[in-house]
Amino acid sequence: MELKTPEESKTTLTDLVLPSETNPLNNLFGGELLARMDRAASIAARRHSRRIVVTASVNHVAFNKAVPLGSVVTVEAKVSRTFKTSMEIFLDVWIEDRESGRRTKANEAIYTFVAVDDMGNPVPVPPIEPQTKLEKDRFDAALRRKQLSLVLAGKMQPSEATELKALFE
Amino acid sequence: MELKTPEESKTTLTDLVLPSETNPLNNLFGGELLARMDRAASIAARRHSRRIVVTASVNHVAFNKAVPLGSVVTVEAKVSRTFKTSMEIFLDVWIEDRESGRRTKANEAIYTFVAVDDMGNPVPVPPIEPQTKLEKDRFDAALRRKQLSLVLAGKMQPSEATELKALFE
Amino acid sequence: MELKTPEESKTTLTDLVLPSETNPLNNLFGGELLARMDRAASIAARRHSRRIVVTASVNHVAFNKAVPLGSVVTVEAKVSRTFKTSMEIFLDVWIEDRESGRRTKANEAIYTFVAVDDMGNPVPVPPIEPQTKLEKDRFDAALRRKQLSLVLAGKMQPSEATELKALFE
Amino acid sequence: MELKTPEESKTTLTDLVLPSETNPLNNLFGGELLARMDRAASIAARRHSRRIVVTASVNHVAFNKAVPLGSVVTVEAKVSRTFKTSMEIFLDVWIEDRESGRRTKANEAIYTFVAVDDMGNPVPVPPIEPQTKLEKDRFDAALRRKQLSLVLAGKMQPSEATELKALFE
Amino acid sequence: MELKTPEESKTTLTDLVLPSETNPLNNLFGGELLARMDRAASIAARRHSRRIVVTASVNHVAFNKAVPLGSVVTVEAKVSRTFKTSMEIFLDVWIEDRESGRRTKANEAIYTFVAVDDMGNPVPVPPIEPQTKLEKDRFDAALRRKQLSLVLAGKMQPSEATELKALFE
Amino acid sequence: MELKTPEESKTTLTDLVLPSETNPLNNLFGGELLARMDRAASIAARRHSRRIVVTASVNHVAFNKAVPLGSVVTVEAKVSRTFKTSMEIFLDVWIEDRESGRRTKANEAIYTFVAVDDMGNPVPVPPIEPQTKLEKDRFDAALRRKQLSLVLAGKMQPSEATELKALFE
Repeated sequence: MELKTPEESKTTLTDLVLPSETNPLNNLFGGELLARMDRAASIAARRHSRRIVVTASVNHVAFNKAVPLGSVVTVEAKVSRTFKTSMEIFLDVWIEDRESGRRTKANEAIYTFVAVDDMGNPVPVPPIEPQTKLEKDRFDAALRRKQLSLVLAGKMQPSEATELKALFE
Repeated sequence: MELKTPEESKTTLTDLVLPSETNPLNNLFGGELLARMDRAASIAARRHSRRIVVTASVNHVAFNKAVPLGSVVTVEAKVSRTFKTSMEIFLDVWIEDRESGRRTKANEAIYTFVAVDDMGNPVPVPPIEPQTKLEKDRFDAALRRKQLSLVLAGKMQPSEATELKALFE
Repeated sequence: MELKTPEESKTTLTDLVLPSETNPLNNLFGGELLARMDRAASIAARRHSRRIVVTASVNHVAFNKAVPLGSVVTVEAKVSRTFKTSMEIFLDVWIEDRESGRRTKANEAIYTFVAVDDMGNPVPVPPIEPQTKLEKDRFDAALRRKQLSLVLAGKMQPSEATELKALFE
Repeated sequence: MELKTPEESKTTLTDLVLPSETNPLNNLFGGELLARMDRAASIAARRHSRRIVVTASVNHVAFNKAVPLGSVVTVEAKVSRTFKTSMEIFLDVWIEDRESGRRTKANEAIYTFVAVDDMGNPVPVPPIEPQTKLEKDRFDAALRRKQLSLVLAGKMQPSEATELKALFE
Repeated sequence: MELKTPEESKTTLTDLVLPSETNPLNNLFGGELLARMDRAASIAARRHSRRIVVTASVNHVAFNKAVPLGSVVTVEAKVSRTFKTSMEIFLDVWIEDRESGRRTKANEAIYTFVAVDDMGNPVPVPPIEPQTKLEKDRFDAALRRKQLSLVLAGKMQPSEATELKALFE
Repeated sequence: MELKTPEESKTTLTDLVLPSETNPLNNLFGGELLARMDRAASIAARRHSRRIVVTASVNHVAFNKAVPLGSVVTVEAKVSRTFKTSMEIFLDVWIEDRESGRRTKANEAIYTFVAVDDMGNPVPVPPIEPQTKLEKDRFDAALRRKQLSLVLAGKMQPSEATELKALFE
């Protein structure tokens, strides 16, 4: 399969925070943002693999900034690394101030998707080659995250997670 | 107010066609696409004006292509021309084929928004200067559309609609 | 096929403006009203044709009046003219004041639907005969709108648009 | 307060059965129909009283006919009787066959609403005078239903429910 | 079929009152609560019968307490009595105060569901044996409600409704 | 503040998978399950703290099992550990087979919420004491997760994350 770049899967979902998506403080529900990021990430995964894709996991997501009702929210998703049948998607979320027009980072998130055939069986995905400095950093970190995920699931011995272990030495 | 370009207001809303948005043929409801375009256009108008904006009118919209359930739909909105307190927004809608990755144009639409203050009163918006050939064509056509809209509303005599009239000579 | 009247397709959709349908000024989103009108128009088109119907186009729609949260909105749709496989639907939208009970006109809109078979292919629709003065005026104007739509789409020479051209003479 | 007729509050809500409202047999969920009837009934109660209205109770509702996805459903609501601060609303629900155009009765339901002021306190509503045979029958039956409701709530002795008791003699 | 207890079908649906579900007084719409209770009741009926189930009727429901935006609402559903192919489901609805944590009863409701096969034809359901005092009371009352429902539908003579009639003697 | 147990915050949300929540394979969207878990977790956090609560982060979530349209899904949430102003919530998700009635584990997830006052400022929450073996295991693991989260956010040196580090020795 042909080698691709992260840019080829880049997906931008800019939309409003609607009244039906807010909590008692009039900010976007965390759960709604998770759902919106899931849709953007699934499109990036599909653009990379040209397959049906299903959510495999969501990495740690921190909600650092409240997103008020009526905000313009931009979710940007790109494939950061591929494994045999799975893809890690890195998401950046910005909100913009109406009056100044300034964009501020609201969140980052990492989702993993698996490409499947019509019966739901995993199928291989094309390899990826990061281009920019940021894409390369995210590509490298993806391997440590994969190891952490396997360790936490009990599918890898901590001692075998070479890249991850190095963090604690 | 500072002169702006259409590119500065460019808004991209890429999202899936969800099961709750489809008609009996399993295609996206026309009405749902109109609502989605309205949200993208309102963000472009807000980015240009940095004001609260409200929909003033929708120009003729043709639905040339059915958009099936599960499609990836990209709505792209840009301010095409400004008048005193209003902005014309031009929207291009594409769908993409999952297997080939090819994008095809599904629709075009033109919405007009008015910038308002917190009380809902119209306020002036910055002027715009088109840059590309396509942006210049759309800028020129916007004046004819404005005249047509005034004529149809009975607010302008057909004989005064100079640019529009030229079409029929 | 049997000749029908506009009254036979008349469709009334009276409903509330719900909190999930409002913009930052607490008024109904333009996009939501477009979606609601699309559903009412599709029912009128279906009642006339007794076929599956799909949205072909939306004519110019002006949003003259804000529709506040909690309003009672009545959308009334009637087939105004038929062509070979398509139907023009004229919509009138009213809101009513809770305390006085007075109805005021909020919008007018014109949608075009095509009747299709189960495969999505266009099929002929019954002819229509307007009865009232208003129905006759709308029936006549529909031909000019059809010509304008063909001219704007580049499918008819302005010089051939006889009824439309007369407007500018 | 001025005497009104049931016809003055008549509310028609014709809409489609959307994909998001169906159960595993592809029919309208009972719960969705209950919600749609609640909105139509609240509009009829508001038209009669010109007040904010809140649902007080729902009488026995039987779901005799399945309502398939894509159906056109008409809910018709009218005030059938008024008490001091409350109104009984009678609802008739029809579905229509696309091909024949024939309407069949799908359901009947009876809701009770109370008129309230801005603080939520009950306020008196105008009296009503039924006009047609059907309106008169429903007006009379409303009193028996009121008694039944009071008996079931333990707020009236069965022996005092004169009209209701007569049914069993 | 094996005898079951009400407890085996017990279904708990605890959820928030979301902004899209509220009326002009910022309380939960009656219609939304009816829809939520319908979903909980259908799960209880399905747990008892292990069949597809459809709503057959809703008994009298009184809305005694307003349920404000942001409330935590618990709907608890249990099968209270079975007939040949139908099940009566008794629902208790509580809201809880955020600060004190105290739960108060907001509503009771009674729904009837029918078990069906894949074609929608009624099929027999297992019998039920109430265990607690409350379950036994509700089991006994269910027969009177069944008779009342048959009388009101004109399918039983009032004189034959022995248990119901006893109420009025 | 008074010591509490995990059981006191236990929240059960049993509901159906609705047609509007499914992906092209007719299974529940990952994003919808994330939103539903967020609502259940927020209720558990609120029951523990009796405060307004906002989502602070979502830990790693693996989607091991597809959840088909029409499934009955039970989300169970309990506070697993408290820190000064934050609470870790552990969620277990089950689906049940309609015919056999057997429940199978579909997912686990861990969310963190912060208790806030009306202005959105963090406020202290009551301490918690785990009772069962499972609650104690989850309580202990919560500290390692907290350290991992701080390390990944660059707010703690890996060398200080004593409990976490022990895993890799």
